[in-house]
Amino acid sequence: MSILPKALEKTIDAFGSLPGVGPRTAERYAYWALKNNKKYALTIADALESIHDSIKVCPKTFALIDSNLEISPLYTDTSRDKTIVAVVAEPFDIVALEKIGVFHGTYHVLGGLISPIDGISPEALHIPELLKRIDEDSVKEIILATNASVEGETTAMYIQQQIENKDITLTRLARGLPIGVDLEYADHITLQRALEGRTNV
Amino acid sequence: MSILPKALEKTIDAFGSLPGVGPRTAERYAYWALKNNKKYALTIADALESIHDSIKVCPKTFALIDSNLEISPLYTDTSRDKTIVAVVAEPFDIVALEKIGVFHGTYHVLGGLISPIDGISPEALHIPELLKRIDEDSVKEIILATNASVEGETTAMYIQQQIENKDITLTRLARGLPIGVDLEYADHITLQRALEGRTNV
Repeated sequence: MSILPKALEKTIDAFGSLPGVGPRTAERYAYWALKNNKKYALTIADALESIHDSIKVCPKTFALIDSNLEISPLYTDTSRDKTIVAVVAEPFDIVALEKIGVFHGTYHVLGGLISPIDGISPEALHIPELLKRIDEDSVKEIILATNASVEGETTAMYIQQQIENKDITLTRLARGLPIGVDLEYADHITLQRALEGRTNV
Repeated sequence: MSILPKALEKTIDAFGSLPGVGPRTAERYAYWALKNNKKYALTIADALESIHDSIKVCPKTFALIDSNLEISPLYTDTSRDKTIVAVVAEPFDIVALEKIGVFHGTYHVLGGLISPIDGISPEALHIPELLKRIDEDSVKEIILATNASVEGETTAMYIQQQIENKDITLTRLARGLPIGVDLEYADHITLQRALEGRTNV
């Protein structure tokens, strides 16, 4: 005999499929959904039901956009500079950069980073579309805004090879000490990069 | 201009209402729901949509049951002893006790614990229904399976007062050293209770 009602077990199982959610957390979420006003559970249900149909990928920048739009507003916005392109791995990286509010170029989402271990080859990423944009929009600068990881470096190197014959400035985000972190707690590689990239005061 | 598609922001907000889920975790859940096969998002949506209508509270034990049932199967099961009642605070406590598989009595869910700070008075709990069950089922033993907290102790004391004129054995879960915990790491009160409740070898 099952101890819990079927609908509750079903909800616990469903929540358990979320990333990083174990059985106890899933139980907590399900019990919360049941104990609280019905409208909270229905709000989540409603949002999840429409998420796939209401969102599409911009065919130009590969950012996520409302399905009623043709192209990302971050690209069509005439106040933004199309000749400067920040290349990011995932759509959410755009949010992180937009929050700072100082970048006024456009974005290009690769859809991942080159990772032979995970079977992600350059062909799986939106690099050909980036090369096409370079010609179409007469791009002057490409900012590689990728993670400071092996995959990020590999992808940066690959893109560099692809555009070495073009007249483009290729930059990448500075590596160094994060603000607020004590020097003594910084890891070996970060400190090495901070030293290599030291600037005049 | 919003950076993310509306449907994605709606999903992030919805997930953000779950207990202990901050903006970053909500973003992670929403992005997962979008990136994965549509069926995962729909499974959660579907479960949440039916959870309130498919589950009700047993009018006898106040456990959660399928809405097509009258009484909790843990009560109607004839192999279970109705004269022994384990009193728990919340429905999920039943699951914890059932998992051990050694208790063959029935359950009574109080629906919380007495807590003047949170405004939970004895009247808000299912204590009158417990007293009624004592008479109806000729209950011989009540096991107070409440948390070892101030609220748990207060509730235990209140129930004790309510039944002191009845011929019932009132027991509660033993307090002591949890299995696998080093004595030196046990907290002050736990160790004190373990000493008070010492047993012959």
